[in-house]
Amino acid sequence: MTAARRDTYTPETLLSVAVRVFNERGYDGTSMEHLSKAAGISKSSIYHHVTGKEELLRRAVCRALDELFGILDEEPARAGRAVERLEYVVRRMVGVLIAELPYVTLLLRVRGNTGTERWALERRREFDHRVAELLSAAAAEGDVRGDVEVRLATRLVFGMINSIVEWYRPDGRGMGERDVADAVARLVFSGLTRA
Amino acid sequence: MTAARRDTYTPETLLSVAVRVFNERGYDGTSMEHLSKAAGISKSSIYHHVTGKEELLRRAVCRALDELFGILDEEPARAGRAVERLEYVVRRMVGVLIAELPYVTLLLRVRGNTGTERWALERRREFDHRVAELLSAAAAEGDVRGDVEVRLATRLVFGMINSIVEWYRPDGRGMGERDVADAVARLVFSGLTRA
Repeated sequence: MTAARRDTYTPETLLSVAVRVFNERGYDGTSMEHLSKAAGISKSSIYHHVTGKEELLRRAVCRALDELFGILDEEPARAGRAVERLEYVVRRMVGVLIAELPYVTLLLRVRGNTGTERWALERRREFDHRVAELLSAAAAEGDVRGDVEVRLATRLVFGMINSIVEWYRPDGRGMGERDVADAVARLVFSGLTRA
Repeated sequence: MTAARRDTYTPETLLSVAVRVFNERGYDGTSMEHLSKAAGISKSSIYHHVTGKEELLRRAVCRALDELFGILDEEPARAGRAVERLEYVVRRMVGVLIAELPYVTLLLRVRGNTGTERWALERRREFDHRVAELLSAAAAEGDVRGDVEVRLATRLVFGMINSIVEWYRPDGRGMGERDVADAVARLVFSGLTRA
C-alpha cells in the first residue's frame, strides 16, 4: 500500500494538491502540515520532491506564467495588424485562465512577501507591459480609440479578464471557454452598445 | 494625554483604522490585539465602542453597501432609457469605489466565514442583480447588444469596475475619479475599437 501510494505521488499531483490548498488557505496561511494532510503523504515524502512550500509556489506560478507568455510567441500574436494580434491575445488569455484556472488564480493572488512572490509580480508586470505595447501599436495604427490612456485601458481590460477566476467554475453548465472568450472579445473591442 | 487621546477616538476613526488593518492582514488574520495596537488604544477602550471585530466589519461593509445601493435611488438611475440609467450607475459606481476605496476594497474581499460576511455577500449579489436587471432592460429596449448573455456581461463589467480597487491609489498623480469614470464608461459602452 505504501509503495502504491508513493507511486501515485508524482511531483505533478503534489503540485495540483498544493495549488488547491494555497488557493483555499492563502499561501501565507499554508504550512507543510496542511500540505501533508491534504496530499495524504508525510512531510518527509513531500521533502523528497521539493525543498519546501516556496518551491511548490514557484512551480505553480511558473506554469501559469509560461502559458501566458507562450501566447505572445504564437504566430497570430506576432504577425498582422496590432489590433488583430491584440484580439488574438485577449481570446487566448481567456483560454489560458480557464484551462489553468487554479494556477492562474494563485498567480493573481500573489502579494509579494517572499522572493518567489516578488519575482512572480515582476513577471506579471512584464506580461501586462507586453500587452500594453500591443495596445499602443494598435492605437498608433489608428484601429483603437485614442481617448483612453493606454496604461489605464490595459488595467481595465486585464481587470475584466482576470475577474474570470473569481466566478468561472468548470461545472459543465453550458458555458465553455469559447463562450467566455467570445463575450470578452465583444465587450473589450465593441462594448455593450448595439453595433 | 490619556483623556485627549480618548477624545480623538470617535467610533468613526476607530472604524477607519480597523478597515485599514483588515485590508492589510485580512479579516480572519486580524485580532483585537492588532486593532488595539494599530489604533493606539487599549482593547477595553475598543470594547467601549463596539462588541468586537465583527461589528467593525459590519459597519465598514454597511458603509460601502449603503453608498452603492444609494446610487440606485438617485434620480438619473431611476428615470429615462435603461441604457442611460445604466451608464449613470456605472459612472457613479466608479465614483463610490474611489471615494470609499478602503471600504469597498474590504467589501470585495469578504469571503463568507461569519454571519456578517455571508450577509455582505448576499447584499453584493443583490446589488449585482439590480444592475443586471438594468442591463436586461437596456437590451429589451434595443440599446444594448443581445449577443452577450446578460449575467455574463454583468460579471465582466463588474470585473472591470471592481478591479479599480486593486490598482487605484489616490496619490494625486493626475488621474482623478472623473478620468477613471470616463475611461470605464467608454470601454464598457463602446469598447476599444475606434468609433
